[in-house]
Amino acid sequence: MNPAIVLRNVARTATRRPVVAAVPRQRLRAAAVQVAARRSISSTEVAGPPDAPAPKKKEVKYTADSYPNIQRNSQFSKLTLEDVTYFESICPVVSIDKGASQDELEAFNTDWMRKYRGQTRLVVKPKSTEDVSKIIKHCNERKLAVVPQGGNTGLVGGSVPVFDEIVINMSNMNKVRSFDEVSGILTCDAGVVLEAADSYLREKGYIFPLDLGAKGSCHVGGNVATNAGGLRLLRYGSLHGTVLGVEVVLPDGRILDDLSLLRKNNTGYDLKQLFIGSEGTIGIITAISIICPQKPTAQNVAFFAVESYEKAQEIFVKTKQQLSEILSAFEFMDSSSQAFVKLVTRKKLPLETQAPFYVLIETSGSNTEHDKEKLDTLLENLMENEDVSDGTVAESETQMRELWTWREGIAEALGHYGGVYKYDVSIPLSELYLLVEDVRTRMKEVGLLTTPENPEGIVVDIVGYGHMGDSNLHLNIPVRGFDKRVEKALEPFIYEWIQKRRGSISAEHGLGVAKSDFVGYSRGETELGVMKAIKGLFDPNGIMNPYKYIKA
Amino acid sequence: MNPAIVLRNVARTATRRPVVAAVPRQRLRAAAVQVAARRSISSTEVAGPPDAPAPKKKEVKYTADSYPNIQRNSQFSKLTLEDVTYFESICPVVSIDKGASQDELEAFNTDWMRKYRGQTRLVVKPKSTEDVSKIIKHCNERKLAVVPQGGNTGLVGGSVPVFDEIVINMSNMNKVRSFDEVSGILTCDAGVVLEAADSYLREKGYIFPLDLGAKGSCHVGGNVATNAGGLRLLRYGSLHGTVLGVEVVLPDGRILDDLSLLRKNNTGYDLKQLFIGSEGTIGIITAISIICPQKPTAQNVAFFAVESYEKAQEIFVKTKQQLSEILSAFEFMDSSSQAFVKLVTRKKLPLETQAPFYVLIETSGSNTEHDKEKLDTLLENLMENEDVSDGTVAESETQMRELWTWREGIAEALGHYGGVYKYDVSIPLSELYLLVEDVRTRMKEVGLLTTPENPEGIVVDIVGYGHMGDSNLHLNIPVRGFDKRVEKALEPFIYEWIQKRRGSISAEHGLGVAKSDFVGYSRGETELGVMKAIKGLFDPNGIMNPYKYIKA
Repeated sequence: MNPAIVLRNVARTATRRPVVAAVPRQRLRAAAVQVAARRSISSTEVAGPPDAPAPKKKEVKYTADSYPNIQRNSQFSKLTLEDVTYFESICPVVSIDKGASQDELEAFNTDWMRKYRGQTRLVVKPKSTEDVSKIIKHCNERKLAVVPQGGNTGLVGGSVPVFDEIVINMSNMNKVRSFDEVSGILTCDAGVVLEAADSYLREKGYIFPLDLGAKGSCHVGGNVATNAGGLRLLRYGSLHGTVLGVEVVLPDGRILDDLSLLRKNNTGYDLKQLFIGSEGTIGIITAISIICPQKPTAQNVAFFAVESYEKAQEIFVKTKQQLSEILSAFEFMDSSSQAFVKLVTRKKLPLETQAPFYVLIETSGSNTEHDKEKLDTLLENLMENEDVSDGTVAESETQMRELWTWREGIAEALGHYGGVYKYDVSIPLSELYLLVEDVRTRMKEVGLLTTPENPEGIVVDIVGYGHMGDSNLHLNIPVRGFDKRVEKALEPFIYEWIQKRRGSISAEHGLGVAKSDFVGYSRGETELGVMKAIKGLFDPNGIMNPYKYIKA
Repeated sequence: MNPAIVLRNVARTATRRPVVAAVPRQRLRAAAVQVAARRSISSTEVAGPPDAPAPKKKEVKYTADSYPNIQRNSQFSKLTLEDVTYFESICPVVSIDKGASQDELEAFNTDWMRKYRGQTRLVVKPKSTEDVSKIIKHCNERKLAVVPQGGNTGLVGGSVPVFDEIVINMSNMNKVRSFDEVSGILTCDAGVVLEAADSYLREKGYIFPLDLGAKGSCHVGGNVATNAGGLRLLRYGSLHGTVLGVEVVLPDGRILDDLSLLRKNNTGYDLKQLFIGSEGTIGIITAISIICPQKPTAQNVAFFAVESYEKAQEIFVKTKQQLSEILSAFEFMDSSSQAFVKLVTRKKLPLETQAPFYVLIETSGSNTEHDKEKLDTLLENLMENEDVSDGTVAESETQMRELWTWREGIAEALGHYGGVYKYDVSIPLSELYLLVEDVRTRMKEVGLLTTPENPEGIVVDIVGYGHMGDSNLHLNIPVRGFDKRVEKALEPFIYEWIQKRRGSISAEHGLGVAKSDFVGYSRGETELGVMKAIKGLFDPNGIMNPYKYIKA
């Protein structure tokens, strides 16, 4: 008997169970290797989405036009040539009034999804905290609105202007300030790119306690300002726990130096926490300090086919129990999401067995042998109980990266149609996937979903995937084009659905322009009242990233 | 050769190194067992502190008398019989005006160290969030000052009144509200005792992500309100990362329901963070939700004698690297601290070898075999490199608890003299113990330290111990009686010393009355300005826990 088959199919045949239980660990490992190795040779076709057209570069609509209910705040001043000249005396600028072209400004005015577009005439690029302080002080005195901008990789339009807000781009502040090799505490400018920070740390035996798809572009300052969650929150916790300090320029230009290198400091309100996730509305983060975990010396990735969402939950509980301290990611993807990746990348699926769900498990530990043993024991257990219908374990770093692409590549693959409606929500685990099913039913009911009977439906498919370990679902609805009918069918339907379950309408993507109007579905009146009061306390003129987040 | 001797003394004899390296793991384990087992048979005497008298129950001085610079705020009203009658209609009260004796009130007026004493005439004991809301609303309207009180186990006088503030004691709110066995998320009332919460969770395979000496009395609400750190922060992180939500009654009586069950929720400012560590100054926490780690199924405790503080640091780095994900505590104790425990408990020291420092390492994992192997490898490595001069590994839960008493028993042991000056500070690791040495030198210089030449010195000894993993030193100065000369020699000397190194004057104990005046040594003007503004925003009448924390 081919041991690969044992690993892959036994869970479906109850009579084989005793055989599996008897297979020694070494053979299971061997099986896993063979399965992984065979991926490129044979693969089953999966019914997938309609052929994807090459992405088109269409003109991006002005946010002011997409959101006609947002009006420019008339209390804000208009930028003058004197203002620009003053800013130019402080730091590099990109300014229409100083000869820059509209094209040069476009990258700062438009988000990477090409969904939001502002109309700024000026981008300032400070090189130091003092520069930022001077800029903000002037803006506050003159009542000029601003948008702090990091890597501009956000998904809710938070990092580009709506009207003529001045863009404060942080890319010139990109230095590591200090790193302590004993404590693992890093201090760096806000404009350091996440991947650069991580590479720097890896050379010293540490890693950044955050990892996400946009790591090659996003800034650590932006990560903190938006409280990015990412792929390994399950293991390393949220930035509220790992960030030790921030340096912030307040809306009046004062520098708040809370750049602590201490893990414990109970001397007053923990102000830095207010800035984590504040999306640039009460100050600009200019530097951060963060405690970094050690680089794991052993990593494993396993990928399973799962027959139902209930099974996926059971696997999650068992995995938590058995992998415990070495579990670093537990991701789930539905079959639709995988079909899109397959279609766009033209790669073979990692498993031959088709299933409604797939699960990716990653371990990060310090002892290869121990971790493999733990993982093998889990695999045996899952197979014995028929929890998985197929599975593979990566045996090299290349294979690990390859398996991760089936999770990390989803967002990009979905972008190959006319548009994607994206919802990033948190719901108690038991009902997490029910939202995808209910949205699918609804889209069918309103006749918008592509089906054999409706092959030209504007809605291409309903896709669900995400961080199961954090109860965080990414509900994505790829469409042939943005359409008011789709929006009307989705909202407030989705938000009401989430509110009923006390979920979050934005688990990790934040509010920005996109979710600002819907925050009431996840927050009560008292909470919103206190938030508005805090905004007013820090930024009485309202110049910081207006028209977004918690509106006054 | 007795293998026990190999484990214990080899590091001191360079020539024996190859022998150790050759000892197989099994024998090292056996050696450890023998060492642990032998503890009760033979032990070396250690030069210790002077004989401790039995603790005396002296009269506790009123805080108002110890701090004559604090004046009662004349804007606060005085309690009337009508007020008491109203409160009595809401919930149980202990009131002088309703026949309670001074003695009955004493437990609520005085802290457990018997260092702070207030003069309240009324304790209210709400049974629900609504009760708290009614009480606070009335107090705010009447400008009656209040003190929220949990288990009253604080060390800085934060949980007892200074003058006649009404005590809001939370012990009647002690129910678990919900627990999700899949996600590990617990929701419970603020007045649940930490140990009770932990026992409840252990039955379900989880633990509370916080552990500290006062667990038998302290409330989880108080833990959150003071941002307690404790013994395993190194592993499970701070409450800022694990607390998912709070229910808070605001100073105007509104209930802020931020009792989230979600790990991710990026919908506005993370308000709960402001209450974590706010010491009851901007609201009363009535319930918390918290994510709990799984109960470790394997635990180990090792205890080492170390020749110098530099060696202790080296051991810390190696331990972090080698035990990585299973390391759950790294505590250090100086020889003085251990001598006090020995003297008071009359127990044998766990190691025969005397050394200036001792280190306690705990692992918490999911696989006994794996963890033991990792620990054994570390032990071998430490011995080969002569990093430790003696050591023992607990082989049973009883032995583990026994080893922990040498760390956890310090605070109590020091309390057997006339008093203890306690400093709980955070300093960059490299200079952590230098503070103890510098304070010792200073106390000698001013002629206050007990020495062979000065056997009746008011200062009994200078003791340092703490959470090395968190750069958190507990500097304790046991004295034959509180004395202004000692205080003058200690302060601001210690605070200035810490300020120079950008440390924290209160790592985990908070500010309360004790550290309130010194917060400027750890926080800048801008930070303090913002903190005062936040206090003013939430509590314009200043009724919440006045005379403490960040003063207006």
